[in-house]
Amino acid sequence: MNGKLASYSVDGTHYYGAVRDDGMIALSPDFPQWPDLRAVIEAGGLDRLLEAAEGRPITHEAGTFDYEIPLANPEKIICVGVNFPDRNAEYKDGKDLPQNMSLFIRFPRSFTGHDRPLIRPKASDKLDYEGEIAIVIGKGGRHIPQEQAYDHIAAISLCNEGTLRDWVRHAKFNVTQGKNFDRSGALGPWLVPFRDHAQLEDVRITTRVNGETRQDDRTSRMIFPIPRQIAYISAFTTLVPGDIIVTGTPTGAGARFDPPRYLKPGDVIEIEGEGIGLLRNTVEDET
Amino acid sequence: MNGKLASYSVDGTHYYGAVRDDGMIALSPDFPQWPDLRAVIEAGGLDRLLEAAEGRPITHEAGTFDYEIPLANPEKIICVGVNFPDRNAEYKDGKDLPQNMSLFIRFPRSFTGHDRPLIRPKASDKLDYEGEIAIVIGKGGRHIPQEQAYDHIAAISLCNEGTLRDWVRHAKFNVTQGKNFDRSGALGPWLVPFRDHAQLEDVRITTRVNGETRQDDRTSRMIFPIPRQIAYISAFTTLVPGDIIVTGTPTGAGARFDPPRYLKPGDVIEIEGEGIGLLRNTVEDET
Repeated sequence: MNGKLASYSVDGTHYYGAVRDDGMIALSPDFPQWPDLRAVIEAGGLDRLLEAAEGRPITHEAGTFDYEIPLANPEKIICVGVNFPDRNAEYKDGKDLPQNMSLFIRFPRSFTGHDRPLIRPKASDKLDYEGEIAIVIGKGGRHIPQEQAYDHIAAISLCNEGTLRDWVRHAKFNVTQGKNFDRSGALGPWLVPFRDHAQLEDVRITTRVNGETRQDDRTSRMIFPIPRQIAYISAFTTLVPGDIIVTGTPTGAGARFDPPRYLKPGDVIEIEGEGIGLLRNTVEDET
Repeated sequence: MNGKLASYSVDGTHYYGAVRDDGMIALSPDFPQWPDLRAVIEAGGLDRLLEAAEGRPITHEAGTFDYEIPLANPEKIICVGVNFPDRNAEYKDGKDLPQNMSLFIRFPRSFTGHDRPLIRPKASDKLDYEGEIAIVIGKGGRHIPQEQAYDHIAAISLCNEGTLRDWVRHAKFNVTQGKNFDRSGALGPWLVPFRDHAQLEDVRITTRVNGETRQDDRTSRMIFPIPRQIAYISAFTTLVPGDIIVTGTPTGAGARFDPPRYLKPGDVIEIEGEGIGLLRNTVEDET
């Protein structure tokens, strides 16, 4: 069964539902036992939602609702840094490919939903995009072997892992602050249930700014493929249903141009993942 | 009104209550509107709990309950790195004092409660202690000025910010993985409501391992004092009630000895904060 599931709001009321070309089929009113998509994933209920949506008319027409990030309150959002070969070279620090993946954490409030503005903060005008594929854990676990890692994925989504380039280098070690400005990135538009390795193993990911392609690569070129990410992360922490892993961005972020090409109000950023969808955001200044 | 409030469990049932020398006065059964101490803090209810406990007998005797971490599910736990002058020198990287504070994130599951074992994982035998003071945000906000920062603190606690020393240097940038092994650190034992700057401004913090003092310093020597931490963090993210900031450790962690003195099963680590209490943990190997 195919389909896409989203979290959205209408005049401040939150729903989840099935995505159609012309709008949303609200499903949350029919599943009070599952208050949000995290609860659906914990219960293994994505397919039941898709079944419930079959043949039903839309509840909310396109243009009458706002996309929210698919999971409002995951226990963890773990991001993988420097995961494409050319990106390591971009750092020009003369270092070989790293032995292990770099990891950092983002809080949900650092993201906004599809079709909503990224916020360029007062503190910095160096807002940059990073197009990435995000996976959502379905079955939790610790010490998950690489060979079983795909069995632990419930769904796929997209991420604009928006970054304040000066603030990631503010201090000794760690990129935390430059990665966690309120609504500086985006997650969505929706979740695509994961059923087959082919949905992740060699998938094209592209980023366009105002129609110009800036990033264009394939998941098959990751230094640390997704099963290895799950194995490595679960070596130190217990993964639980709803955890999100943001899997790394290709070369071509705005900071790498000379001069750098940072985002500014009015820009339109599109992240497209083959078989997943298109995450589009504009930019506004913090008020 | 003075007093200490803790989260604890009895045979798997969770409570919060007021701490007495001989046990706990259970308060959560009387406040069903507040399911946990985070909800109490969101409602500004710490004083109401202390009032409710006055003159009451204990509900659970010492030895019949287990301490839990004070807040099971804060939105954020943000840790400040390299915050005492001698610690910067310990890194021996020839760099001057940093202009801004280093920040990293820990997940709640990387901590255990008072009087429970830290877990030395299978993946590394380089488990190290870091004694620190933790603050809990009461009033949220963004762009909080330093001069108003103390008004945003609801309570104080202690942290053993346990670290796997090899895993913090596993990859390019970021200490995430070495700081997030399941139950590698501890938070607690309790919350002390914050009423006066003097509870934080020049407070002694000491760490002992098997009775031997390893860390001994005062909060007045922080490179980035607590009000500056709140101002800097709220420059990029909205702080909300229940958020925890772990404020940085003095010099003297086990990794700095030659040879290093890492923790091993059976060790007893005590973190003492003047006017706050004593957080004690043992060490066990992951099974």
